[in-house]
Amino acid sequence: MKIRLLTALMAAASIHVSAQDSVMLRKISNEIMLHGTCYDNLRVLCKNVGHRLAGSPEAARAVKWGERAMREAGADKVWLQPVDVPHWVRGEEHLYVRGEDGRKVALSMLSIGNTEGTGGETWKAPIVMVKDMDEFSKLSDDEIKDKIIFFDYHFRQDLIFTFEGYGDAVKYRWLAPNVASSRGALAVIIRAVSTGEDDYPHTGAMRYMDTVKRHIPAVAIGNYSADLLVKKCKQGEVIGYLSAEAHMLPDMVRSYNVIGEIKGSEHPEKIVVVGGHLDSWDVGEGANDDGTGCVQSIEVIRAFKALGIRPKCTVRAVLFMNEENGLKGGLAYGDSAKARNEQHIFALETDAGGFSPRGFGLKMNAKKKAQIWRYKNLFLPYGVYDFSRDEGGADISPLEKMDVPTAGLLPDPQRYFDLHHTDNDVFENVNHRELKLGAVAVTGMVYLVSEHGLK
Amino acid sequence: MKIRLLTALMAAASIHVSAQDSVMLRKISNEIMLHGTCYDNLRVLCKNVGHRLAGSPEAARAVKWGERAMREAGADKVWLQPVDVPHWVRGEEHLYVRGEDGRKVALSMLSIGNTEGTGGETWKAPIVMVKDMDEFSKLSDDEIKDKIIFFDYHFRQDLIFTFEGYGDAVKYRWLAPNVASSRGALAVIIRAVSTGEDDYPHTGAMRYMDTVKRHIPAVAIGNYSADLLVKKCKQGEVIGYLSAEAHMLPDMVRSYNVIGEIKGSEHPEKIVVVGGHLDSWDVGEGANDDGTGCVQSIEVIRAFKALGIRPKCTVRAVLFMNEENGLKGGLAYGDSAKARNEQHIFALETDAGGFSPRGFGLKMNAKKKAQIWRYKNLFLPYGVYDFSRDEGGADISPLEKMDVPTAGLLPDPQRYFDLHHTDNDVFENVNHRELKLGAVAVTGMVYLVSEHGLK
Repeated sequence: MKIRLLTALMAAASIHVSAQDSVMLRKISNEIMLHGTCYDNLRVLCKNVGHRLAGSPEAARAVKWGERAMREAGADKVWLQPVDVPHWVRGEEHLYVRGEDGRKVALSMLSIGNTEGTGGETWKAPIVMVKDMDEFSKLSDDEIKDKIIFFDYHFRQDLIFTFEGYGDAVKYRWLAPNVASSRGALAVIIRAVSTGEDDYPHTGAMRYMDTVKRHIPAVAIGNYSADLLVKKCKQGEVIGYLSAEAHMLPDMVRSYNVIGEIKGSEHPEKIVVVGGHLDSWDVGEGANDDGTGCVQSIEVIRAFKALGIRPKCTVRAVLFMNEENGLKGGLAYGDSAKARNEQHIFALETDAGGFSPRGFGLKMNAKKKAQIWRYKNLFLPYGVYDFSRDEGGADISPLEKMDVPTAGLLPDPQRYFDLHHTDNDVFENVNHRELKLGAVAVTGMVYLVSEHGLK
Repeated sequence: MKIRLLTALMAAASIHVSAQDSVMLRKISNEIMLHGTCYDNLRVLCKNVGHRLAGSPEAARAVKWGERAMREAGADKVWLQPVDVPHWVRGEEHLYVRGEDGRKVALSMLSIGNTEGTGGETWKAPIVMVKDMDEFSKLSDDEIKDKIIFFDYHFRQDLIFTFEGYGDAVKYRWLAPNVASSRGALAVIIRAVSTGEDDYPHTGAMRYMDTVKRHIPAVAIGNYSADLLVKKCKQGEVIGYLSAEAHMLPDMVRSYNVIGEIKGSEHPEKIVVVGGHLDSWDVGEGANDDGTGCVQSIEVIRAFKALGIRPKCTVRAVLFMNEENGLKGGLAYGDSAKARNEQHIFALETDAGGFSPRGFGLKMNAKKKAQIWRYKNLFLPYGVYDFSRDEGGADISPLEKMDVPTAGLLPDPQRYFDLHHTDNDVFENVNHRELKLGAVAVTGMVYLVSEHGLK
């Protein structure tokens, strides 16, 4: 009987909390869907600042934009956290191929981020096609030496959660230049890590391993260009003509994380972080990667203020710098948190595009997960149902290593890898309602954790 | 004990079925995501046929396209079912307004479907703005007589399931011309039934009530144009200049439903229908409304054939004609089913856009719903989780009236009412993965019901 009574009381208590929370989530939703400024903010970021690779003048302008947007949202306090970032520049680049028919054809290409190009010279060499690492490993040294190796590995379209397909294919972006260099290749071409039914090449990061002596050029080509190259390689010898000015500048550049905060009313020492990253690749407008995460994080502050919510814990929105090619912003934030002995109780990242929210990935212990799972039904009216994945975020991974529970917004993943790291990741490819609904989900989760803690 | 044993046996049987079904759904998914032709089919329909209002030459071409696509998908049998449809034509049209500043400004407009225009003459009259029916009802007769009434009713952006917002706002498209005419108005302007952050006007159907004597012109204007008109009306008197050639042609036109079938191996007399509608409005390309539903229905046939699935029940894909402004195709199909005494055990419509699938609406009795709900977990890996809504489809509503259990695919609803019935409903606004994933959901559901029946 005692147990039954306790169960009933717990159920009653939980229902009580849920009813209030449900009302507050509806208020948050109405506020953002009707009066949200995240879409307008994104327009300004995309159209007035544009793409903003860490270290670039555009990134410096983005910091200014973020600071102003955070103040306009009504943060109690806004500050810049210094971060020294690398500065990679692309310059001019092109890739032509000449096959059996003798015609020189331009392929749609982008140097992979952080690579060293050809110094602007045109390098000419036969192209050797392999479909994957396994096929590459079977090539003789002669077949590789001084050749341009084309890795025609396809993004797996059969995987419904596209981040799994990305995880599978992206190793070609990171590893191919290293393994090819170590066996004497001149340069590397990969089929872009892309789900796109188009010819947009995707850039993205790689890093030369310390064991690799020659930093060879590596470029990604669009899916249609890759299809064409496959066809030509099957017809006979193909000669590639590659020119790329890409290089890493020698000096680090002073940049900043942008932070806005609402002080907690009961537990100001307990901090709930929500964030995205302010830098982007140097193509397109960095709309979905990750302008949307930035404006959604700012929207959390704005919605709290507009609704007069005084959070019990401190709520901090962070626009991290240099997620794309160094993670220096996330590392600096983590270092600062450690140095100041700050108590972070939760960190949530939104860096998977401005699409309809479908769930939250959770990286925390089972007890804390169980608490979040109790909120599941609160999110159902907003189309958010999937709390099953173990996903946090790159920028908050240093916090995760410090045992802070982390989470990541999971928007619908079907379109993300058509767009990300391309010239096509522009404002027009973000829908206003989807973006706002994502902000509703994020704000709701921040509200619940700042209200109830995470024990 | 007997009951327990029975329950255990039933549970075991159900688990057995689920494991096989789960494997089959994965096969269906892999087949469609890797080899699906629905996206290519949609390209042809949108780019080679284009928009295709019932009765138009384009609709006749769409019938030919559908017949060929159904044969190419491998249907055992393909036939055309005659349907006589109305033929409404838009012609040239424009709307200018002149406000206090004396400047004549063009508004972005479309005549509402089925309306009668001004006979191509320019009608000039003061514009009277009301925000809703309630405000309209308070106007005096003098304020209405010979005026152009502007209903500035907004699509409710706070409703997350946009079809609820549509249901709320669309009554202005159907009713405003009727109530305004009955009180002596010259013409009607409505703010388009649109969630769009843009200036695309939406057309769509209305019907003059039998009690209404004068069939007055009625047009919809884009959201930005509506904002401008509101501003001008607040500044002082605004004169409207409306010209529209819209009219209904006197004769019905012979058209067709396109039907493709795979004969059932065990219960050929039991029919499972999946369909979308082939006609569209006379703007854009009818991509999401409802080219996507057509190509997904055809994909069901193709996937069954490609995988060598011999359905136990007969599976029929139907491309209905004239959903938009008459429903003659749906009615003809229902009449034929009744006349032939066909036994339809399930009808599924896909007519809510080619976006990521999120659920199925179900219109059937509780016992049948309970059976479908047992399949819920099978659909979760494909992002389909919501089986809570009571939604079927317009074309299959005549079957529903004959007690056939019906269902409707529920894709993510955020973008649909930005696009539908506009010049912006084009192929480029359909994503290849989202479209295919919708086809996976539809094919999976048709497979399960054709395999297990619906008791």
